[in-house]
Amino acid sequence: MRTKLTIAILILFTATNYAQTDSAIFKKIYNEALTNGKSYSNLNYLCKKIGGRLAGSPQAQQAVDWAFKAMKEAGADTVYLQECMVPHWVRGGKEVGKVISTGGKGIKEVPICALGNSVGTPADGITAQVIEVFGIEELEKLGKEKIQGKIVFFNKPMDPTNIETFRSYGGAVMQRWAGASEAVKFGAVAVVVRSVTMAQDDNPHTGSMGYKDSLNKIPACAISTNAANWLSTYLKTNKELKFYLKMSCKFLPEEKSYNVIGEIYGSEKKDEIITVGGHLDAWDNGEGAHDDGAGIVQSIEVLRIYKALGLKPKRTIRAVAFMNEENGLRGGKKYAEMAVLKKEKHTAAIESDAGGFSPRGFSNDMKPEQRKKLLTWAPLFLPYGVYDFDNDGGGADIGPLHDALGTPVFELMPDSQRYFDFHHTAIDTFEAVNKRELELGGAALSALIWMISEYGL
Amino acid sequence: MRTKLTIAILILFTATNYAQTDSAIFKKIYNEALTNGKSYSNLNYLCKKIGGRLAGSPQAQQAVDWAFKAMKEAGADTVYLQECMVPHWVRGGKEVGKVISTGGKGIKEVPICALGNSVGTPADGITAQVIEVFGIEELEKLGKEKIQGKIVFFNKPMDPTNIETFRSYGGAVMQRWAGASEAVKFGAVAVVVRSVTMAQDDNPHTGSMGYKDSLNKIPACAISTNAANWLSTYLKTNKELKFYLKMSCKFLPEEKSYNVIGEIYGSEKKDEIITVGGHLDAWDNGEGAHDDGAGIVQSIEVLRIYKALGLKPKRTIRAVAFMNEENGLRGGKKYAEMAVLKKEKHTAAIESDAGGFSPRGFSNDMKPEQRKKLLTWAPLFLPYGVYDFDNDGGGADIGPLHDALGTPVFELMPDSQRYFDFHHTAIDTFEAVNKRELELGGAALSALIWMISEYGL
Repeated sequence: MRTKLTIAILILFTATNYAQTDSAIFKKIYNEALTNGKSYSNLNYLCKKIGGRLAGSPQAQQAVDWAFKAMKEAGADTVYLQECMVPHWVRGGKEVGKVISTGGKGIKEVPICALGNSVGTPADGITAQVIEVFGIEELEKLGKEKIQGKIVFFNKPMDPTNIETFRSYGGAVMQRWAGASEAVKFGAVAVVVRSVTMAQDDNPHTGSMGYKDSLNKIPACAISTNAANWLSTYLKTNKELKFYLKMSCKFLPEEKSYNVIGEIYGSEKKDEIITVGGHLDAWDNGEGAHDDGAGIVQSIEVLRIYKALGLKPKRTIRAVAFMNEENGLRGGKKYAEMAVLKKEKHTAAIESDAGGFSPRGFSNDMKPEQRKKLLTWAPLFLPYGVYDFDNDGGGADIGPLHDALGTPVFELMPDSQRYFDFHHTAIDTFEAVNKRELELGGAALSALIWMISEYGL
Repeated sequence: MRTKLTIAILILFTATNYAQTDSAIFKKIYNEALTNGKSYSNLNYLCKKIGGRLAGSPQAQQAVDWAFKAMKEAGADTVYLQECMVPHWVRGGKEVGKVISTGGKGIKEVPICALGNSVGTPADGITAQVIEVFGIEELEKLGKEKIQGKIVFFNKPMDPTNIETFRSYGGAVMQRWAGASEAVKFGAVAVVVRSVTMAQDDNPHTGSMGYKDSLNKIPACAISTNAANWLSTYLKTNKELKFYLKMSCKFLPEEKSYNVIGEIYGSEKKDEIITVGGHLDAWDNGEGAHDDGAGIVQSIEVLRIYKALGLKPKRTIRAVAFMNEENGLRGGKKYAEMAVLKKEKHTAAIESDAGGFSPRGFSNDMKPEQRKKLLTWAPLFLPYGVYDFDNDGGGADIGPLHDALGTPVFELMPDSQRYFDFHHTAIDTFEAVNKRELELGGAALSALIWMISEYGL
């Protein structure tokens, strides 16, 4: 709250600094996005004609080809590919999860899915007793004696009391990411992790996990929240329950893939770059509409809006469709590596990877004096419902650039209430995205880029 | 924007006026709503067990009985009914709309529905040539010569460039409300009105219309936006197209109905009332989830939250489920009439009738000095994403109270981007409402009521 009051103060003292022309350009940008917007039809294509597109998959390559074409059609002055090697994890056949009652009489199948990067089970699956914990920190208390040979069921829920749901995600995701390696230390044979969502339903949520190289790799899956609640209750009266898990996921050899980059050349400072991007890869179990088809089509829309309105940015706008954010970040890393190698000047980088919902602000990470300048622009955004400029960091794909060059970074922050209902599931589909909410995101990005391009940071 | 800057200024100068305790109570209210909220399950019941509930219908009576019970269960100190007579309009059998090509060779059925309060057609329908206009103002230009004996097709779309979609609604709804009486002046035999939505789909949107008593009453229906676009295009090359319309809607005799009222008595100023409400009636063609089941369950949730937390409001909180907002406003009028008759003191009235979406603010209408006080509270709301306190008026049901007693009024303003996708259609169902977004609305209402109750206006 203190930060938001600071913003209010800065709005007050600088409200009249910026020209009528900027305000008029904002209006033009929003009108164009809401009247002639192409982001929604682009998203339709990406979701319905290509769908899930995990790095290394044929669909990811289709998405690369499509993004190249879409940036051309948006009017980019140049479009090119930036090569990077990516991991190629495949889910294999449909996973099977079953809860088996004491003595093996009752068997109930439950909705699960492999976590990304997990090893599979042996071909005939794994069966072991289940032990429930509510977070990694509980493993130590139980110790090897209680965990050895069992399947650990991580059941820590997301905290519903945060207004920003990403905060609650941060508080619950560690058991998904690190649960397997932590549990194996105590002799666990597999882990079943509560889906990281506040929704109560039957959709398991995938997402990446990682192993510690020094430890054995055990299979890791997500279970739907409905099934997690049921299992937890059932365990209270049936402590000997077993879980059967079968997954055939695995890594194939790495593949060559690409970031797709489209530029509008700056009219005055062509060598100063403003990056705007999202990630092109998406989990294989859905259509990757909010995560992150939205960010991709909004970034392409920025190019289209500038060209359609004949706006001449002083600095170069570079839309980037990053590859492999979900399970490796190779695209983001490659982008930073090349920026360093080519000694590029990066004025700012903006990511859209929090869903195609109604924008509320831009979180950011930059030097205090840059931030001070940013906050003077806030009044221009207020009529568009964009009021939140908290310094909560930028996005994952532009993190390596920020780390390497100190580039000021932003992330578009849409309303976060619905995001984790869809995140990494089969229901993250085109139908879950509202046209106007999506379009407002592309407009907000375009407007912020206008200010950065005109005035720098 | 100027208003929003004024807010920023007031936030600055008064940010430290309010106590830590108010901030702590806000947090408790939000935690309770997001952790133990009952609004979502209540909405499920209202939508799925009762459904559409237009005034005068058996379902409206079921809703009255249910609301009475739900307010009791929420812990209200008293619950009672306030009788009012309501119109009883029924849709009758499914409407039929067909476009008939020149010579009658091609016939295409199109999705239509009767507008609320419309007369029906003769039993065998009406067939007449169609003439398209883009608003009432075009009728005069065409004149009797071109309109006489025809069906007028009002096809003015909503303006997509407003950020607040309610503004665009205001700009397009007049052809729905007054189109029939305006067109009949020029000899029209019926009107077909483009659905008031920015969505492009096959759902016709109903909504009320009204006749001028001195003029003939002609049937009025809504047509889906997809069909309206198709018809408009088809008319360009086939100017002689006819439209066939059959509707069996009509008014039955007025019925006795009720506002449902639940109160928590004020601990210090019991006779000073803060009203919070929505409307219990909903169009017959959907479940009335956003319009206005959301407002109903949020108002009941205010009572529950206060009781669950043991909060003792100084002033009396009165939750009101108003009857007949959609096609008569009899409940709102009766409420104001009784307030005057009983010489009640009304400190403020708050309405929630803009959908169960993520809250962004409270529009309001009050005296400048009251508003000045209100704006000093803004910093408390900012951490909850509630930042917009523009003076854009209160809601329909509390309008008569405002007019009669000058009561300060508020309307909860959720994000408006999706509202008109669902408004008055078959898809305004429980599934269209997000649990957390709904809960945040009940929390925001409770928080605002806390401040009014503690400090007055």
